[in-house]
Amino acid sequence: MRPQSLAVIGLGAIGGSVAWQARIAGVASVVGYAKDPADGFQALQAGALHNLAEHPARAVRDADLVVLATPPQATMELLETLGPALRPDALITDVASIKGPIVARAAVAGLGRRFAGSHPFVGTHLGGWAGARPDRFQGAVVYVSSTGAAGDVAAREIMDCWRSVFGAQPVLIDAAAHDAQLAWTSHLPQVVATALARAVLETPDRRGASLGTGFRDTTRLAASPAEMWVEILILNAGPVREALARQQGELAELGQLLARGDAAALRRWLQHGAELRRGLDDPGATSG
Amino acid sequence: MRPQSLAVIGLGAIGGSVAWQARIAGVASVVGYAKDPADGFQALQAGALHNLAEHPARAVRDADLVVLATPPQATMELLETLGPALRPDALITDVASIKGPIVARAAVAGLGRRFAGSHPFVGTHLGGWAGARPDRFQGAVVYVSSTGAAGDVAAREIMDCWRSVFGAQPVLIDAAAHDAQLAWTSHLPQVVATALARAVLETPDRRGASLGTGFRDTTRLAASPAEMWVEILILNAGPVREALARQQGELAELGQLLARGDAAALRRWLQHGAELRRGLDDPGATSG
Repeated sequence: MRPQSLAVIGLGAIGGSVAWQARIAGVASVVGYAKDPADGFQALQAGALHNLAEHPARAVRDADLVVLATPPQATMELLETLGPALRPDALITDVASIKGPIVARAAVAGLGRRFAGSHPFVGTHLGGWAGARPDRFQGAVVYVSSTGAAGDVAAREIMDCWRSVFGAQPVLIDAAAHDAQLAWTSHLPQVVATALARAVLETPDRRGASLGTGFRDTTRLAASPAEMWVEILILNAGPVREALARQQGELAELGQLLARGDAAALRRWLQHGAELRRGLDDPGATSG
Repeated sequence: MRPQSLAVIGLGAIGGSVAWQARIAGVASVVGYAKDPADGFQALQAGALHNLAEHPARAVRDADLVVLATPPQATMELLETLGPALRPDALITDVASIKGPIVARAAVAGLGRRFAGSHPFVGTHLGGWAGARPDRFQGAVVYVSSTGAAGDVAAREIMDCWRSVFGAQPVLIDAAAHDAQLAWTSHLPQVVATALARAVLETPDRRGASLGTGFRDTTRLAASPAEMWVEILILNAGPVREALARQQGELAELGQLLARGDAAALRRWLQHGAELRRGLDDPGATSG
């Protein structure tokens, strides 16, 4: 589908970019709503919106496509409450980093045939309208999860929209598989970075000249907004705990190698990690 | 001091840069030795050296300053064996990422008055001559550790050399304090990145489109050369195990918060990490 009338709820880095890029792509009506008035005013001034609405229900009433670009809990609440305000033929999607609980809530709210969840991979650490870009989704992978068999048509329409309006690369994925994968690829790195920042920076002596680019890169994710991550981690606690246990196991193994002074085993432990990581940059070289 | 005749043993990213930058700075004789002939030939071809020596003892015999740019174990062996080949007035330094064991070995080898250890902060993940740069040390912090009271004059001379020849910013630090600090700021991030790469990438399913810049940044250090890190971690095992235990404690605390579903405590855990990390980029904002 190509929407004629798009509503975007939430005008931060992701929602603001959705509105802006859709407007540039020629969508005839782009209406936005932001809880933070500053985000809304800036989006309007930048030309990302035709109209800034005073309330989500007002924003969505003429829309044939609604994008919920709010944190996960707010997204689930909007799925419960927005129903009566929507056009009967409107399609709805979201952009949150977890999909299982959101897709389930859409089905419970009676939106199973009209909703599919989306997760664009454009970085979750960008906060507010200041992070919006008019070409944010060009070439980006967007995972799309349907509500089940009943939602397959909606999922196809929404994938088509990501492709045709935003130039993105939509990939259909089961919501539970998405959340299990993200626990490893996104949620575990997030908490590992936070744990490392806490472990090292708590003590002022350790903030010396030796905190170089290596430490900064390894802990960069720790600066992400805590509020959003609380929701993601609580909603995906099961898979995250499983991934966390594996990380703890790796560190425990390392501790034993160091305690024994086992250089040969330590070399294998480091070498295998190096090969796996280098394989990411050069997939042909992956040995694991 | 400004050396008239510099010998550099090891022509990888660090040693190669030492030779190259010294040559450009006008040091009258720059002689190098590399265990890997390819590094040596490339350094010679690039104009980083006046002479490439066939053996370390040959490289150092006319030098008034010797820089050992080899892995820690090789550096300690050279301190033992090079003595007879050195000019009696030659000063010696190294560039390894640990300082305690190396400074101790220099004293044992009878070089206590002529040696001070150096650790330039220019990244330890760069391998081979290909990583050499003719301005690598310009503006870089270089930690310098003396062998004790007897070595203070040598340490001052070597600091002066880093400043005057290389444009670096030398900082005097006790060798044990250096190693304790680096366990937190460098060695812990290294093993955390390796553990994360191992935990996530071992299973091919997890290498999906969702492996984005966040994961790549957090695990970048894992690609570092295993051989060098085995030596560093074994030589600094005590402080590294202490730092590792703290990281494990953070992850265990997180696991408990997730098991309890304690959103308020999880928010505090994440928020404090975010504030500490943001304080690195904006020191005025540090609250911890």
